[in-house]
Amino acid sequence: MGPRTDGTLSATMDRIEETIRARIAPPAELLDRVARVRADLVHRAEEEAARRSSPLVRALVAGSAARGTFLADRLDIDLFLLFPPELARERLRDEGLALGRAILSGPETRYAEHPYLRGSFGGFTVDAVPGYAVPDPSRPISPVDRTPYHQEYLSRHESAATVSEVRLTKQFLRAQGVYGSEARTEGFSGYLVELLTIRFGSFRGFVESARGWRIPVRLGEPGTEPPRLPEDVALILADPVDPHRNVSSALSRRNLGLVIVAAREYLARPSLSWFEVRASAPLSREEAARRVRERGSHVVLVELSRPDLVDDTLYPQIRKAERAVSEELSRSGFEVLGSASAADRERVLLAVELAQPLRAGARLRDGPPAGIDRVGEFLSKWTAPGAPVLQGPYVRPDGSLAVETREENREPVPFLKERLSRLSLGRDLTPTPRAPGIVRALDESVPSEALGEVLRDLLAKRLPWLDRTEPAAPT
Amino acid sequence: MGPRTDGTLSATMDRIEETIRARIAPPAELLDRVARVRADLVHRAEEEAARRSSPLVRALVAGSAARGTFLADRLDIDLFLLFPPELARERLRDEGLALGRAILSGPETRYAEHPYLRGSFGGFTVDAVPGYAVPDPSRPISPVDRTPYHQEYLSRHESAATVSEVRLTKQFLRAQGVYGSEARTEGFSGYLVELLTIRFGSFRGFVESARGWRIPVRLGEPGTEPPRLPEDVALILADPVDPHRNVSSALSRRNLGLVIVAAREYLARPSLSWFEVRASAPLSREEAARRVRERGSHVVLVELSRPDLVDDTLYPQIRKAERAVSEELSRSGFEVLGSASAADRERVLLAVELAQPLRAGARLRDGPPAGIDRVGEFLSKWTAPGAPVLQGPYVRPDGSLAVETREENREPVPFLKERLSRLSLGRDLTPTPRAPGIVRALDESVPSEALGEVLRDLLAKRLPWLDRTEPAAPT
Repeated sequence: MGPRTDGTLSATMDRIEETIRARIAPPAELLDRVARVRADLVHRAEEEAARRSSPLVRALVAGSAARGTFLADRLDIDLFLLFPPELARERLRDEGLALGRAILSGPETRYAEHPYLRGSFGGFTVDAVPGYAVPDPSRPISPVDRTPYHQEYLSRHESAATVSEVRLTKQFLRAQGVYGSEARTEGFSGYLVELLTIRFGSFRGFVESARGWRIPVRLGEPGTEPPRLPEDVALILADPVDPHRNVSSALSRRNLGLVIVAAREYLARPSLSWFEVRASAPLSREEAARRVRERGSHVVLVELSRPDLVDDTLYPQIRKAERAVSEELSRSGFEVLGSASAADRERVLLAVELAQPLRAGARLRDGPPAGIDRVGEFLSKWTAPGAPVLQGPYVRPDGSLAVETREENREPVPFLKERLSRLSLGRDLTPTPRAPGIVRALDESVPSEALGEVLRDLLAKRLPWLDRTEPAAPT
Repeated sequence: MGPRTDGTLSATMDRIEETIRARIAPPAELLDRVARVRADLVHRAEEEAARRSSPLVRALVAGSAARGTFLADRLDIDLFLLFPPELARERLRDEGLALGRAILSGPETRYAEHPYLRGSFGGFTVDAVPGYAVPDPSRPISPVDRTPYHQEYLSRHESAATVSEVRLTKQFLRAQGVYGSEARTEGFSGYLVELLTIRFGSFRGFVESARGWRIPVRLGEPGTEPPRLPEDVALILADPVDPHRNVSSALSRRNLGLVIVAAREYLARPSLSWFEVRASAPLSREEAARRVRERGSHVVLVELSRPDLVDDTLYPQIRKAERAVSEELSRSGFEVLGSASAADRERVLLAVELAQPLRAGARLRDGPPAGIDRVGEFLSKWTAPGAPVLQGPYVRPDGSLAVETREENREPVPFLKERLSRLSLGRDLTPTPRAPGIVRALDESVPSEALGEVLRDLLAKRLPWLDRTEPAAPT
């Protein structure tokens, strides 16, 4: 690749984006059908509510289906059934689900934070979601109550051109594996993508801004940030309809970091492949074993049986369990290179890669600084007869106390077997006497879907575009 | 040991301290002789100055010999020969040394920051030190010019009782190995001990205060601290005759920490042994090898030839070299348990203990956070053909980049052999092609004084009183 002028690069990007916009635009025929189904759904809901004397205040189709910002192969139609704020939660649920059942065919109850109904209507899959018609979106009763206001805000700010740029941005994020705000993905929600595209005017405006972002990214006016942000917040953008809420609370720092780097690289080396979604292949046990030999490292696996939970409840617990195991090993003198976790239908699998086959036999334990009360306790503990002390207690160069102790259980698998039941692995994952969890070395592992995933995430991490970016097309 | 009331403990301490005060007080006969020698020295200096028409302004004996605060077995008599501030440095040196030579027998030139003369007089060893008679001690020309003012300040604030408490405090610090402000010791200077004893009224007052100190200890009024304190300052006490100077600049955090803990333990378990000086024995190669086997660790030694420097110049360089070697190993993926250094007449020896026999074969290298310019450089470097990459580059959970690389030189001795010449080991210690420095494993080491010392400091660290404190005497 020779050097290129910005002008040439920009023209290349124009062509690429034009191609992708055309490729992912829903066909006019589909948009027509969606528009008809929207109107029919609302009409049917109102009709049915009248027939049943249901206290329904309003029915509406919101979300990407309402605005045409959906990707053709990822169309969800959400029908919101809004009831008066005075209605008790149980009646809301009953009335909502009853209405949904009357409208949709093949209805099936599903659970997010609240139950909703999935069924079909006019050839589309439709989710019927009960909520409250609240007068102020910054005081919602259930989490979905802000949706009509989101719909109104976006409709007011989106032109036909913006809609097309929203789809382009979604496709770019999807190709990097970071589109979707489910707990499993920890990526960008559709609403967040729409707000960002409106704010930066276009996909190009978004990537040009994002390439220089520093985490945590603050997009609001100073002093107007939502309260109680978590310590590891990645991006802060107040919801225009509810300033107390951070729109991107689901987004992880890892995924935002990936998008920042991807934005920079796209602008430097644009190509069609940036918008192409490719499944990332699992890593086989054999290939993993080969890599581990090459790395001189050791992999420990913990298998737990999968509790009966929806993904959005399960995944935060899996990540907590992964952290707990990894931190326990690290705190106990094992050198942790990385960790990963995954779940399939039957099991939850945690994996930790250790740099050395054994932890050190001598362990340096930090004591309190000289001068505090805890010094007495520390000295009593480590000068008691039988304390497993190899050296010390002594004073370190910084003036604090330390002691070096003998570590008996130096191999990771027996060590973790002994500790596992004492770790806090998350509410529904903590091992019990009847489901104690299984600790294994890699060469004793049993092939499964989850195994292929954790091994990939542990031993085949790589920026997703590195192996697929072709040189920018010649001008 | 049963529980004791504070009153009983306090009476025990009274008796112990009384015993030690009596034991270490210089005999009256010695004090008389010192007083006579002081007067004679000043008289002889003035006489000789007159005879030679020397520009001497004043001669005085300062320091502990002048105040009786010396320990009987550690008596240095310092004769200060003060000249007019206008005198050029070279003439000061020449005139001072010439006067000294005329007064002392067996004179020998020595070097601290400036040359001085050591000889004998009236049966005592005497140092004759040239300096300037400055009008303001906060603007000294040479570092010794403050001494007459120190002498005056202490004489004004010390009673006979304080003098006895100063000796007691010195003895306590000496027994812990932290008395002396030479670079090799990094302990309490005599002047610092006298100021602390004056401030807290007695040895007991000092330990009662010190037991609760937190490092860095600030003993001055807020806002009146000396400027430009180093980051690792241990104790801050402005010199009463020169507020710009920290009296305890020589004291290390390790040694102050030791004294803080010792103060606490002495008050809890007083005994005569707290004041008994015992040499700490070197550790033999054989015993060190036994401990290393027990610890499952590995010791690397670096031997450099000793440059021709005085201890006060050499020791800071030795410590710098120790840090440089230890940090290089740690930065390169070796798990460092501890380090030590020592010098004897022929060699400087650095020792580092490593927890594992090999460093990890895969090394996690932190990259820049997403969004900064250096990302481009990092990606080019680690995606270039032939880069020793095992995994990555990828984005870490915190949003920064990382890559894992293959480490080839995994054994510490060959690794350090290769790196040694590139390390900054201190001005006079950095290896040269002619004196390249020798890297060895413990089992290839050659017995020497320095070896016994580094092995002790590496593998036999322990609070000095732990193996000798007998229970407090019954009341």
